[in-house]
Amino acid sequence: MISKNQLKLLRALGQKKQRKAHGLFLVEGEKNVLELVTSPLLVKQIFATSDFLENHEKELSQFDCIEASLDELTKASSLVSNNAAVAVVEIPKTEAPCAQGLMIALDGVSDPGNLGTIIRISDWYGIKHIIASSDCADPYNPKTIRATMGSFGRVQVSLVDLPSYLASAKIPVYGAFLEGESVHKTEFSPQGILLMGSESHGVREEAARFVTNKITIPAFGGAESLNVAMATGIILDNLRRQHS
Amino acid sequence: MISKNQLKLLRALGQKKQRKAHGLFLVEGEKNVLELVTSPLLVKQIFATSDFLENHEKELSQFDCIEASLDELTKASSLVSNNAAVAVVEIPKTEAPCAQGLMIALDGVSDPGNLGTIIRISDWYGIKHIIASSDCADPYNPKTIRATMGSFGRVQVSLVDLPSYLASAKIPVYGAFLEGESVHKTEFSPQGILLMGSESHGVREEAARFVTNKITIPAFGGAESLNVAMATGIILDNLRRQHS
Repeated sequence: MISKNQLKLLRALGQKKQRKAHGLFLVEGEKNVLELVTSPLLVKQIFATSDFLENHEKELSQFDCIEASLDELTKASSLVSNNAAVAVVEIPKTEAPCAQGLMIALDGVSDPGNLGTIIRISDWYGIKHIIASSDCADPYNPKTIRATMGSFGRVQVSLVDLPSYLASAKIPVYGAFLEGESVHKTEFSPQGILLMGSESHGVREEAARFVTNKITIPAFGGAESLNVAMATGIILDNLRRQHS
Repeated sequence: MISKNQLKLLRALGQKKQRKAHGLFLVEGEKNVLELVTSPLLVKQIFATSDFLENHEKELSQFDCIEASLDELTKASSLVSNNAAVAVVEIPKTEAPCAQGLMIALDGVSDPGNLGTIIRISDWYGIKHIIASSDCADPYNPKTIRATMGSFGRVQVSLVDLPSYLASAKIPVYGAFLEGESVHKTEFSPQGILLMGSESHGVREEAARFVTNKITIPAFGGAESLNVAMATGIILDNLRRQHS
């Protein structure tokens, strides 16, 4: 059973201010919760149905698990559909990494679903670090976590002062612009930062100053734009085709 | 003002059965409604705010326009946020085209948001025809239309008996499978059908029988799967790199 205080905490963690105050975030959904088994993240508690706990008894033995009904869990979670498991997890205290290898930088990507999808596609292409401007979506928003489909544990997102970060980077910065060079023809360096802007504003001037190579996805039809997560995936695929 | 009967119709068109009965569908949102100006689709009526009608007086002069308040429009539409324009449009009576050129085939892609995103990315890459199994999402669902971001007028989606369609196709069928050949190495033919399955079931056996080339997107990290729309975009990009 979920106690009143526990329910209060679970509900509170839906809000950014409360996540910051508690240093905790929510991981919702069976697949996402099971990802915690192999992740280095510190799990405080897992609330789950008896079925879920029985089916995964061995993997979950290391955790503090509390049995709850599907009804209770659905009430406690921000997911609309049935939710057999919710975990309360510590927000890791990590510094933004130095600019090296292949990385992604996001400028003003404020939609948590888009950020989560970018985390998922980054994980697919083996990118471990995302640097995000401080006005990007919260990487610990339940909607972000949900959209990562379990990839949240393998990709680190650091909110930073993006222009300063890019200013000190010593590797190429590939910025996505409509007028850039086709990614089908770009010769990518084995190290670099892929800088993506939001759909509505693109890469803003303060960050654009540090772009060393402007790139674009060639269009062949009538659509005017691509979703930022889709564009990130397509550019990463072109990058990995050259440097795997 | 939107009359009671008009409101009833607008609401009814949120349901598939009613769309079929009336032969009509809804186009919601400013960008999508403006796409109708240059599309061959038959517009019955446009309901919009006075601001929207004034700002686009010239383009909209060919249409039967009815002024309505933002409040009325929001009540009438399925969009959660403000909605300055809604159009009622005839569902075109078109036959599924013969298999030629570059096409997409979808097997059991039941999420309207995914279908809409696939329509948008198809439009970006200049694909004009999508063949979909009859259990795919309705291409005229308001959620589908919304996710196309205006591309609904340039890409035709035909719901068909997919196995029969593929059986009679005389061009290669590229099927996305986890165990396929990397799209970075595949030599695509200038004509072909890209066959995508749903995230949960993949391409089902009845359709998979007609695949001539199994292809896959190479993975470099920990993510187990990609969203079907994302995967479609990445494969189309690889295809267009060879055949533009």
